[in-house]
Formats: sequence, structure tokens, C-alpha cells
Amino acid sequence: MVELPRRWYNIVPDLPAPPPPPLHPGTRAPLGPDDLAPLFPADLIAQEVSTEPFTDIPEEVREVYRLWRPTPLIRARRLEKALGTPARIYVKYEGGSPVGSHKPNTAVPQAYYNARQGVRRLTTETGAGQWGSALAFACAQFGLDCEVWMVRASYDQKPYRRSMMGLFGATVHASPSPRTTAGAKVLADDPDSPGSLGIAISEAVEAAAPDDTRYALGSVLNHVLMHQTVIGEEALEQLGEAPDLIVGCTGGGSNFAGLVFPFLRGKLAGGHSPDVLAVEPAACPSFTRGRYAYDYGDTAGFTPLLKMHTLGHDFVPDPIHAGGLRYHGMSPLLSHMYELGLFRATAKPQRECFEAGVLFARTEGIVPAPEPTHALAAVVEEARRCAATGEAKVILTALCGHGHLDMAAYDRYLSGEMRDHDLPEGRLDAALARLP
Amino acid sequence: MVELPRRWYNIVPDLPAPPPPPLHPGTRAPLGPDDLAPLFPADLIAQEVSTEPFTDIPEEVREVYRLWRPTPLIRARRLEKALGTPARIYVKYEGGSPVGSHKPNTAVPQAYYNARQGVRRLTTETGAGQWGSALAFACAQFGLDCEVWMVRASYDQKPYRRSMMGLFGATVHASPSPRTTAGAKVLADDPDSPGSLGIAISEAVEAAAPDDTRYALGSVLNHVLMHQTVIGEEALEQLGEAPDLIVGCTGGGSNFAGLVFPFLRGKLAGGHSPDVLAVEPAACPSFTRGRYAYDYGDTAGFTPLLKMHTLGHDFVPDPIHAGGLRYHGMSPLLSHMYELGLFRATAKPQRECFEAGVLFARTEGIVPAPEPTHALAAVVEEARRCAATGEAKVILTALCGHGHLDMAAYDRYLSGEMRDHDLPEGRLDAALARLP
Repeated sequence: MVELPRRWYNIVPDLPAPPPPPLHPGTRAPLGPDDLAPLFPADLIAQEVSTEPFTDIPEEVREVYRLWRPTPLIRARRLEKALGTPARIYVKYEGGSPVGSHKPNTAVPQAYYNARQGVRRLTTETGAGQWGSALAFACAQFGLDCEVWMVRASYDQKPYRRSMMGLFGATVHASPSPRTTAGAKVLADDPDSPGSLGIAISEAVEAAAPDDTRYALGSVLNHVLMHQTVIGEEALEQLGEAPDLIVGCTGGGSNFAGLVFPFLRGKLAGGHSPDVLAVEPAACPSFTRGRYAYDYGDTAGFTPLLKMHTLGHDFVPDPIHAGGLRYHGMSPLLSHMYELGLFRATAKPQRECFEAGVLFARTEGIVPAPEPTHALAAVVEEARRCAATGEAKVILTALCGHGHLDMAAYDRYLSGEMRDHDLPEGRLDAALARLP
Repeated sequence: MVELPRRWYNIVPDLPAPPPPPLHPGTRAPLGPDDLAPLFPADLIAQEVSTEPFTDIPEEVREVYRLWRPTPLIRARRLEKALGTPARIYVKYEGGSPVGSHKPNTAVPQAYYNARQGVRRLTTETGAGQWGSALAFACAQFGLDCEVWMVRASYDQKPYRRSMMGLFGATVHASPSPRTTAGAKVLADDPDSPGSLGIAISEAVEAAAPDDTRYALGSVLNHVLMHQTVIGEEALEQLGEAPDLIVGCTGGGSNFAGLVFPFLRGKLAGGHSPDVLAVEPAACPSFTRGRYAYDYGDTAGFTPLLKMHTLGHDFVPDPIHAGGLRYHGMSPLLSHMYELGLFRATAKPQRECFEAGVLFARTEGIVPAPEPTHALAAVVEEARRCAATGEAKVILTALCGHGHLDMAAYDRYLSGEMRDHDLPEGRLDAALARLP
């Protein structure tokens, strides 16, 4: 059996060039560590800008990881058989975690470092609730209060994730809320606003102002991606052979980076060179149709400017079921690596993804969350190609969460009510025209 | 790592006396294997009446088991710490299965043996949907059609389990349905009937009449309990020490039997004698307040008469959240063993159970389904007693499912809206007065 990793992997020092720095939204000067101190504890800021390739995982964090890690690497033989493919499909499964996804991999160390610095309360935003419930769980482990702004549309429509946050002891507000200036302003304009991730970020950042409070983000940032490398480090040990193709889904990028970075280490050192593919939703295609430019992380423009693939900070993606992939931007580190040609990207419409999800559930027994069905769709496509060509490719993907809380989406797919979402050129151009 | 078991354990031949036989509902004569042939395939009937202590698990079944088995045995150190107890608490976790519970352990062999005999379609009933989704999954593995009668109240209120059955390819009817004589009769009397497990059993049994169709039951019967012994056989190998106390929750009894039977093997042979405790809901206390008598398995009186602890075949338990424990009867085999003094039983009100569930989730990160919170409540009680006495007891329990589809119930508990349910003497006496 594979051992629980002792170190996280930071890919930045192994890259031929570092990613462009975040900029102050007012002065457009590069941000220093001090600028981030009101938001994050010193240890996480150090990790965010670290040039060390490895960081030891504190024993207190490993002790919590042990509740569900190491996670299984599954050879999907029944799926292979159903596809009649000579390809060998390996799936790293993160759905056995406390909240059913990969999110606790970073929530736990974030809560730990905050608690160690004497922080008493963490604020965050959440869309469909995966990240919020992960942070709520992590805060319960280290005795921190947790306050979550949850996008109102999800707050109303997806009460079960809200319940899970409550179960782990967190306080959950519908966003926009009257508790923050940012939220109150939105509500004044539109009392029935359904909210957005961008608004919720603005609220959570604003609420982190008190001295004993900090903010936590579930994706996008370097330290978050680094924490997720436990996924790939385990898979590297578990996989008995070198992968020809690695496929991951991308929203903010943390699950993809977590799986892929350890496998790129060899490639960057001049060794084995796997083909790597990021799969994003056709309705929110930041890699494949976004612009590589400085933009805000939130809708209101409160956050630093990040150089990333973006659809525009006020772009609102269509309400596809993969809520975790509905983000206008992309991790700056992954955006930089994409420009360096270290991996490819493609976009998939949601019905093709759910088709792959249903096939996976019926063959392998695990109901995938809507997000990783994007990766599965690309895996199925490639495995079918191998069936035609006879190639025995080794394909690796991550199933970053189970879909037991997403059955309504499967219902819509199976009943034929689900539709695909276009992204018309005009709408994208309009959003990109408003880049700062 | 523990190996996947190669044999199921049948406790019957190791008992000092065999359990009383089922009787024909009309003649009250003991049933023979032939009487069961219209309902079950020959292999399962042979297992139902087997006097062999072990049955080899077919390789085709083990191949499906491998999707989630062996399941983990967790030492709940964080729970121990929270309770300040010297007791060592071990939890065998079955929530990682395709449907999130122990039910596929028997659904898979049942589908396999039916398919091997040339059966094309299985019918069954389901309450909240755990069993129905397990059988739907198993039928998908062996190419069988699956038709499920789901109690109407759950069908309307718990659409997600219904969706999961659809995802695995099953057809789901709300029960009572106009498709069967039994259902039509109920609807004629009460078009708005919310249904009951008893009615749904009558419908599924009736629908199994065609030659190519058989019926499957998710608990109660000897062969079902035997299939579940994979839980205990694995735990026996995984646990590095002898348990002082084994605790399980009981509805029909299959999860409890699956955990406990392998540990009683030594006791029956005169060896180590663990204390064993069955925990049932106070609202549906068949062991602790039911009568040990012949009764029907369903409400309408279509099934054979079973000698069991029963609250009366037309007793309707209050709508507690642990839907899987809301059955008027109890496995005849376990009932017989209870009379032999092989284990104790106790009943718990649901708020005490949810309190233990919340504590477990916050410490160990797994959200338990409402059913196993009954066992957890008894474990917590005993561990607290050990904290007072200083006893370092070894306690083993099974967490037979996760609660990610039961968040509404946790919501009610956390909001203070949940109440406990009494079972007034008068109501119980009235139901027992109608025993056949």
C-alpha cells in the first residue's frame, strides 16, 4: 500500500520561467508578501511565493489526512471492457473524503496554519458548497469558527451542502447578504439578486477585516495547488507504469494541478513526457476561449489583478450542473504553464460529460460528480480512439468527487431535459471588452 | 492489507438448535425449498436452507466486490479523544460502496445467481431507496432488468435515491401503484395512500409472477445475512485484538448479522466471548418490545409466516429518519439467536442517535447515515462509561452507510426541529392483538 505523502510539491522552481506576479488593483505594482498579510497567515503567504520545490506536510495535517488518505487508484477494467478498448484506464478517486471531494486536501492545511498563527475565524465563499463544506470540516478539526458566504441561487436550491456546513459547525450566509458593504450594495440595486461567486468572494474578503479573522480560497492560488499535489504524489507511487495521457477537469485548476504536477516533474527534468489534457466546460472555457491577461479574481474588482486565462471578471457562466467549474478565471500558475506549452486543453458540452458519467457509474459503480465527468468524457473519447487504432495507451485521470449530492442533475440528463450551453462570440467579446 | 474474503459464513449449523421454519400462510405447514422456487433461484434457496458453515463466493461476485471491498476498518482516535475515553473504538465503514451502504454486499450475489439461472428481471421493494439502488446497481452488472416499488412517501420526498436507481438503469414505480392487484386495491380504498414497506413488498412479490422474473429481498432472510458476513470476516482479519463489545444497528438485521456472525463463531465453539449489542430505534423496537411469534413479512399477509420478533404486520412505525430501521419484524435467524441469549438489545430515541452522528462527523469526518447513528449512540454511551471507570474496552461497530443523502435529517436535528417518537403501550398492544 502507498504511504501518505510527507511533502507537497511546488512546481514553480522547476519551471523555465516563473509566472507573472499579481498586481495591486490600484497602483498595478507587483504585490509583496506584506500586501497579503491581512488576508492570509504568514505560513501560507510564504508557500504562495515559495521557490522551494518541496514543503514538509506538518504532522498535525497528516493526522487529519489519515481519515481518508491515501485514496484509492482504481484500474477501471469494467469501463475498459464496456468500451472494448486496449487502453488501460486508471482513476484516482478523491470522493471518499469527509465531504466527498478533493477540497479537504487544502482546507485542512489552511485551517491548520491559520490556527497556529492564533487566527480564530475563517471566512470564505462557496458556490454549490463543496469548498464551503470542506473548510467547515477543517475548521472543526482545529477549533476555528467558520463563516461561509454561499451564492444565493445555490443556498436556496441546494440545501444539503448548506446542511453539511452546519453539521460541521459553520455559519452560512446567503450571498449577497446585508452583512457586508459589498453585499448590501448589490441588494440595494437588486433585492432578488441570485448572487455569484464573484460577489460572494467580495463579501468573504470584506468580512475577513477583523484582526482575529482571515480569508481562505479553495482554488486558483499557488499554495492551494501545492496542497493538492498529495493526489498526484500518491498516484505516482501507486501507478505501476508510466502514463501516456493524463486528463483532469479544470475550474480554478486545483484538482488538475494536484494530479498533474508530480507527473510533470520528470518531464521538466528532461525525462518521461506524458501528454497532459485539461478539460473545461464549453459554457465556461477559460483556457480555450479566454484571453491571457490581467484581470480581477472577483466580480466587484476587490482582489489583486491576476495574470490568467479569463473570460472577463463580470462574465456569468450559464448555469451548467458542474458548479465547481463555473469560474471566469483560471489559476495564474496553470495559465502560465499553458502558455509554456506544458499541457493541452479542450472544452466539452455537458451532455457528453453526463453520458460518460452514466457509463462510469453503470460499469464501475461510482457515481461521479458533474465536474469530473468532463475529464471522463475526454478519457472515454480517447479510449474509443484506442479501440479503433489498437493502441494500448495508459490513461490516468482523477475522479475528484462523488455525485451523491448531484442526483438532480443526473435526473435531468436521464429524462432528456438537460441541454448544452453555447457561449456566443458576441457575449464573450463583450465581457472581454471590460477587462481592466 | 486484508484480503477479499473467499467464503461467506453461515452461522446456522454452529447454533445449538436451528431456527423454527417458515410456515405456509394458508396451511401453516413448514415450507419446503419448492415453495420458494417461484420467488428465488435455486442457488439462493439452497443457501437459505443450507447446513454448511461456509459457501464459496463465486469469482464473478468477488470481481464486483473488488470495486469497493475490502472496506476500511477505522480506529476512531479523534472520537476517543473527544470523549476522553480509554476505550479503543473501531469502526468498519461500508459507506464507500457504489450506493453508499452495505446493501450491495447481498444485491450483487442475488443478481448473479438469478442471472446464472436465466432469470431476466428482478423485482423488489424499497423504502427510502438504499436497497433499491443497490439492487439496481447489481442488476446493471449482470445485465438484468430491475423493477423497484418505492414507498410513495419516499418516492415524493426523496427524489435523489430514485434518481440513483434510474442512473443504474432500473424502472421505479411509486407504491401503491395501479400495476398490481395489491396496489390497485389499496388505491381504490385510498387514492392518496403514502404507501408502506409492507404494501411495496406485496406489489413486488406479485410482479415477480412471470417465469423470467424473480423477487429479491434486501434483509431478513438467511441467505441475505450470510452474504453480509463479508463485513465481519474482513473485520476479524483487520482487527489486531479481540473485541470486548460489538455493537450494530438493527432494522431487518442484515448489517448487524454481517458484522457479528464471524465474531460469534469462536464463542459458539467455546472460545472468546465478546459482548454483543443490537441497537434498534425506540420508535420501532422489535427486539425489546415486540413479541416472538409467527407473523407475516408484509402488511397484506401475502408472505410466508416467519417466527420472529414482531410489532405486528400492520404496525406502522412513526416516520423517524432512519428509514432502513422502520420494519415491523426482525430476521427470524437473529430472533432465534436473541432467544438463545447470544446477544443483548437496546432501543434508542433518534435525537440521542443524531447527537452521536454529529459528534462522529465533526471528529472523524464521515457523516453517518441515520441508521448507524443508533449503533454510534450506544458506542458513545459505553465509551463514556469507560471514561468514568477507566476500562480500556475494545469496542467494534459497523458504520453501514454515509449520510450524504440524509442531510435534511441532520438539518432538522441541528435546527432543533427534530423530536423523539414514543411508542405508546396501547398502540403496540393493538397491533400485537392482530397477529395471525
